[in-house]
Amino acid sequence: MDVTKIEALIRELNELSYGNMYQNDFLLTWEKSQDEIMATFQVAEILRGLREGNISPRIFDSGLAISLFRDQSTRTRFSFASAANLLGLAVQDLDEKKSQVAHGETVRETANMISFMADVIGIRDDMFIGKGNAYMREVARSVQEGFEDGVLEQRPTLVNLQCDIDHPTQSMSDMLHLIKHFGGVENLRGKKIAMTWAYSPSYGKPLSVPQGVIGLMTRFGMEVVLAHPEGYEVMPEVEEVARKNAAAGGSYTRVSSMAEAFEGADIVYPKSWAPFAAMEKRTKLYEKGDWDGIDALEKELLKQNAEHKDWTCTEDLMAKTKDGAALYMHCLPADITGVSCEEGEVAASVFDRYRVALYKEASNKPYIIAAMMFLSKVEDVGDKLAQLLKDREPRCR
Amino acid sequence: MDVTKIEALIRELNELSYGNMYQNDFLLTWEKSQDEIMATFQVAEILRGLREGNISPRIFDSGLAISLFRDQSTRTRFSFASAANLLGLAVQDLDEKKSQVAHGETVRETANMISFMADVIGIRDDMFIGKGNAYMREVARSVQEGFEDGVLEQRPTLVNLQCDIDHPTQSMSDMLHLIKHFGGVENLRGKKIAMTWAYSPSYGKPLSVPQGVIGLMTRFGMEVVLAHPEGYEVMPEVEEVARKNAAAGGSYTRVSSMAEAFEGADIVYPKSWAPFAAMEKRTKLYEKGDWDGIDALEKELLKQNAEHKDWTCTEDLMAKTKDGAALYMHCLPADITGVSCEEGEVAASVFDRYRVALYKEASNKPYIIAAMMFLSKVEDVGDKLAQLLKDREPRCR
Amino acid sequence: MDVTKIEALIRELNELSYGNMYQNDFLLTWEKSQDEIMATFQVAEILRGLREGNISPRIFDSGLAISLFRDQSTRTRFSFASAANLLGLAVQDLDEKKSQVAHGETVRETANMISFMADVIGIRDDMFIGKGNAYMREVARSVQEGFEDGVLEQRPTLVNLQCDIDHPTQSMSDMLHLIKHFGGVENLRGKKIAMTWAYSPSYGKPLSVPQGVIGLMTRFGMEVVLAHPEGYEVMPEVEEVARKNAAAGGSYTRVSSMAEAFEGADIVYPKSWAPFAAMEKRTKLYEKGDWDGIDALEKELLKQNAEHKDWTCTEDLMAKTKDGAALYMHCLPADITGVSCEEGEVAASVFDRYRVALYKEASNKPYIIAAMMFLSKVEDVGDKLAQLLKDREPRCR
Repeated sequence: MDVTKIEALIRELNELSYGNMYQNDFLLTWEKSQDEIMATFQVAEILRGLREGNISPRIFDSGLAISLFRDQSTRTRFSFASAANLLGLAVQDLDEKKSQVAHGETVRETANMISFMADVIGIRDDMFIGKGNAYMREVARSVQEGFEDGVLEQRPTLVNLQCDIDHPTQSMSDMLHLIKHFGGVENLRGKKIAMTWAYSPSYGKPLSVPQGVIGLMTRFGMEVVLAHPEGYEVMPEVEEVARKNAAAGGSYTRVSSMAEAFEGADIVYPKSWAPFAAMEKRTKLYEKGDWDGIDALEKELLKQNAEHKDWTCTEDLMAKTKDGAALYMHCLPADITGVSCEEGEVAASVFDRYRVALYKEASNKPYIIAAMMFLSKVEDVGDKLAQLLKDREPRCR
Repeated sequence: MDVTKIEALIRELNELSYGNMYQNDFLLTWEKSQDEIMATFQVAEILRGLREGNISPRIFDSGLAISLFRDQSTRTRFSFASAANLLGLAVQDLDEKKSQVAHGETVRETANMISFMADVIGIRDDMFIGKGNAYMREVARSVQEGFEDGVLEQRPTLVNLQCDIDHPTQSMSDMLHLIKHFGGVENLRGKKIAMTWAYSPSYGKPLSVPQGVIGLMTRFGMEVVLAHPEGYEVMPEVEEVARKNAAAGGSYTRVSSMAEAFEGADIVYPKSWAPFAAMEKRTKLYEKGDWDGIDALEKELLKQNAEHKDWTCTEDLMAKTKDGAALYMHCLPADITGVSCEEGEVAASVFDRYRVALYKEASNKPYIIAAMMFLSKVEDVGDKLAQLLKDREPRCR
Repeated sequence: MDVTKIEALIRELNELSYGNMYQNDFLLTWEKSQDEIMATFQVAEILRGLREGNISPRIFDSGLAISLFRDQSTRTRFSFASAANLLGLAVQDLDEKKSQVAHGETVRETANMISFMADVIGIRDDMFIGKGNAYMREVARSVQEGFEDGVLEQRPTLVNLQCDIDHPTQSMSDMLHLIKHFGGVENLRGKKIAMTWAYSPSYGKPLSVPQGVIGLMTRFGMEVVLAHPEGYEVMPEVEEVARKNAAAGGSYTRVSSMAEAFEGADIVYPKSWAPFAAMEKRTKLYEKGDWDGIDALEKELLKQNAEHKDWTCTEDLMAKTKDGAALYMHCLPADITGVSCEEGEVAASVFDRYRVALYKEASNKPYIIAAMMFLSKVEDVGDKLAQLLKDREPRCR
C-alpha cells in the first residue's frame, strides 16, 4: 500500500462520524453506527498500510493491555497481543487460575485492581449463555465507577474478544475480508451469504460466530440466509437484530437445509455451533453445580449432533453456489473431513482451494483489534494517523 | 496534579538523604532510614503526577523486570507489571512450574541465569516462616557475587513483594494512603491506629501484613495498637522493631480485644492472619514432607479459628472509634460478611462505606513499586525527575 | 569494552561474508558457513559491548518474538526473552496447553496464525527423535509459503532453541566461551576437547548437547573426542558431520572411557544424555500411544544408566587432563555429586572451581540469540551496528 493510498483512506475516514467511539467500549457491532463500523475498517486498513510500509503506528510510550481469557484461544490471543504491541502497549494476562479471582473476589474490585495503569481490557468469555456479555458490562460499569470516583486516572476501554452473544473482532475481520474480496462495500449490495450450521465431532462451539455474522452482514444490503437443523436455533434477540438491519435493504431469511442456503450464494460460511436451548440448559446446570447433569447433556447433544453429519460443505454443495464459485469462509480452525477429523464441517478439497483466502481473512483480526483500540484511545484519529504517516518513524529501524 | 505541585515535590525530595538506596534492595522497611522511606513516598507521588499529566517517566529503552511469585497474587502481580512497564521494563515471569527450578537447581545458579539482562527482581515468597526473606537474601547475595565475579554486567536490585516477615510494598501503600488522607505526615503524630486480627473462614493468611504495619506505622509518632486472640501472636522480633520505633515518639501496645483496640481509634485495620507458632510448626512439617501432619494441623487451626468469629469489624465496633468515623483500611481482598463469605472480617455496610478509599489505598502500590525501582536504578533521582518533567515526553502521544 | 574495541569488532565483521543469513533461519550450525558462524560470534560480542556501554541496540519500535517451548526451560527461555527485549521485540508465548494447537490444528495453520506480526519464532522441541527439527522445518516452510502467498507481509525467521539433532544456541555459546577463554579462535587449533557422557540419576536428557558440540567444535581444528558407554551412541548422521568437519583439520575420534578421553585434554565437557537407540524406540512407542511401553522402557533405561555410575568427573580424572587443569564445561544445570543428587555428573569440588567460568559460559546465550535475530532481520548489519554505536542512544537513560 503506497502513501497515496493511505492518504486517500485517511480522507475517507475524515468524512465519517465516529467521535462517539472515543473513550468507549466495543461490545456488540449493532451498538455501533454505520459510520463507526466503517471507521473501524478504515483505521484497520490504514494501520496495515503503515505497518507494511515500515511506519510505526505506536502511540503509547508505555501502558498495559489487559487480557482476560475465560476460554482457550490461539488466534484471538495472538491478535490481541499483536494489536497491543503495535500501538505500544504491553500485554498483561489476568490468568484466573494464577490469581485470586477464582477465590470469590468481586468483579468490581478486580476490575479496578487491574486497571490502575490499564489502557485497554480485552475479554473472552463465551462459555455460558447470558453470562459473557453481562460480565463484560459489569467490568465496564466497574471501571466507569472507578474513574468517576477518582480511583482510576483514566477509564480503560473494553474490547469484546468473544462473548455469548457476539464475536465482533471476528465478524468485523470477516466483513473486511468481504469488502476487500469484492472490491468495496458498495459491491456487497445484493450478494447472497449463506451462514449455515455444519457438523463437527466436537461439542458446544459458541454461537457468537453465526450470531456475529447475521448481526453484522445484514447491515450492508446483503441477502443473509441462516440455515441449521431443527434444535440449532441461535438467540432470538440476535435474529431480531438481523431482521431490523435487513429492513433497511437486503434481507434476512432462515431456511432448513444447507442445499437451499447454498443455492446461488456468493459467499458460504458453514460452521458448527451448539444449540442455543441446550446451551441455556447447560448454563442452568452449571449454576446449580450439577456436573452429572452437564455430562448427561453433553452425551445427549453429541448424539443429536451425530444425526446431522450430512450438514457438511462438500464439492457437490459448492457446485450449487453462484457459478459454483462462492467464496468459502470460516473463522478457523475448521474441522476438515479426513484431515482434522473423520467427518467434519468441510471437504478437504474445498478447504484447500480457499486456504490462502482463509488465512488472509484471519490476518485482518490484529488490525481490526488495533483499530478498535486506536479509535477508543485517540481523540483526533484522522489527525493522529496523518501525523504518523508524516513522521515516518520506522517500525524496524 | 499540576507542574507546580510536581516541582514542589521534587524540591522536597532533594532535601532528603536517600543516596544509599541506589543499587540497593528493598527488603524490610525497618532497614531503611526515615529519609529513605519519605523519599520513596515522594518519588511515588511524583511518578503519579507525571503519569497523570501524560508525561512519560520511562527511563529504560529495554530491560527486564523478573517476577518470581511463589504464592498466588493479582494485585501485587499487576502492580509490579505496571511499575515495570511505566519505567520501560518488560516483565518476565520465572514460573517455577514451567522452569527447572523445581528440579533441585540451586538458588545461586538460577539467580544468575535469570539476571544476565535483569534490572530488577521482584519476589513474593510468604508461605513458610523463616523461608521467604531468607530466600530473598540468598538471591541478593547470589547476584551480588555474580556481579563481583564479572558474571553480571550490573547487579539487579530486589524488591520484596511479600515475604514471611514484611510486606513493604503493601505497608508503604497503606502509609502513603494515611499521609494523603490526613493531609501530611506531620498530622499522623498522636493518631491511634488499631491493627487487629479478624476472623476469616480461610486458613493461613500471611503474617506479613500486620507485621509490616506495626513495623512501619510506629515510625511516625502514631499510637499503634495490635490486638488478636490468644495464639495469634506475630513474630516477636517484629514486635521488638515496633517497640524500638515507638520509643522515638508515639507508642506500641498490645491488647486482647477488638473493642479495646477500636476505642477512640483514628484508623482501624482488621485483618485475618495465621498464628505464628502454628506457621512455624507447619514449616517444620513441610521440611519433613509430613503432608498428613500438615493436613491435621490445618484442621486444628480451622477449628481454633472458628472459635473467634466474634472478631469481626461490625458497625457497633466502628461506633467505638473516634467520632464513630475511623478510617477503615484493608489490603484487599477482604472477607466481607454476607458477600464473599457467610461470616468474615468485616460487615458489608462498613466495607461499602470505605470502598472508594480502599481502592485508592490499593492504587498507591504500582507507584510505590515504581519508586522503589527508580530509587535503586537511578543515581541522580532528583535531577532525573526534573529532566523528565522538563522533557514532557508524552506517555500517550 | 570500550568504543575502540567495538569499532574493531565491526571492522572484523565487515570482512566476513554473511549476507545469506538475512531473512534466513538458524536451525543447525553445520548449515552455516564458517564466515556465518564467525559473524554470529562477532555480532554477539558487539551487542554485548553496546549493552555494557549502556548503548541501546534496539532496532524494533514494536514487533513480536514468538516462543514455542515443547519442553521445560529456564535458561533458554530467559535468554530468548532477553535477546528479544534487547532488540525491542515483545515475547509472546505459544503455550500449547492454553492454545488450540493441542486440539489437532495443523502446523501450517498455526504457524501462519501466530505470524501476522511476528518477526522471530524461537522453538524448543527436543523430546522425540526425528520430530523436533522436522517440526521446525515444517513451521519454516509454512511461513515461507504464507509469505509467498501474500498472507504474511514478512517472513518471520526461526531460531532453533534446541531440537532432537542440534542445540545451536548452546554450542555457539560454548564455542564463544572457548574463543574468549583461549584468547582467540586461532588458539583453538590443536586443542583437545573431551565431550563425554556422564552419569546422572535422571533419565532421558536430550542428545542435542553432545551432538551440537561435536558438530560445531570439529570446525576449528580441534581434536574432538567423544566418549560414552556402549549403548549411548549419538545420531550417526551427526557423527558423520563431525568426521567431515574434522577432515579439514583437527580430528574427530570416539573412545570408550572417560579416562582415555580426559588424557591430556585442554577442555572437558562431561554430561549425561539418553541413548539414541532407546530414544528412537521411545519415539515409536509414543507414536503408538503405548504409555505402558514407555514406562517399561524408562525402567530399563534407568537400570542401564545405573550401571555406569563410574562415569563421573572426579578430581582424579581431572588430574589426567593437560597440566591437570583442563577447562571444565557444562550447559547447566549439572548434576553435582552430594549437592543436587547423591551421585552425579561431576564432583562438587570440580564444579565449584569452575563455577564462575560456567556462569560466564551461560552468559553468552542471550547475546548469541540476539545476534542470530539481528543477522536474520537486518540487511546491512555492519552499517547498522556502526550507526547504533554512533547514535549512542542510552539503554538506561
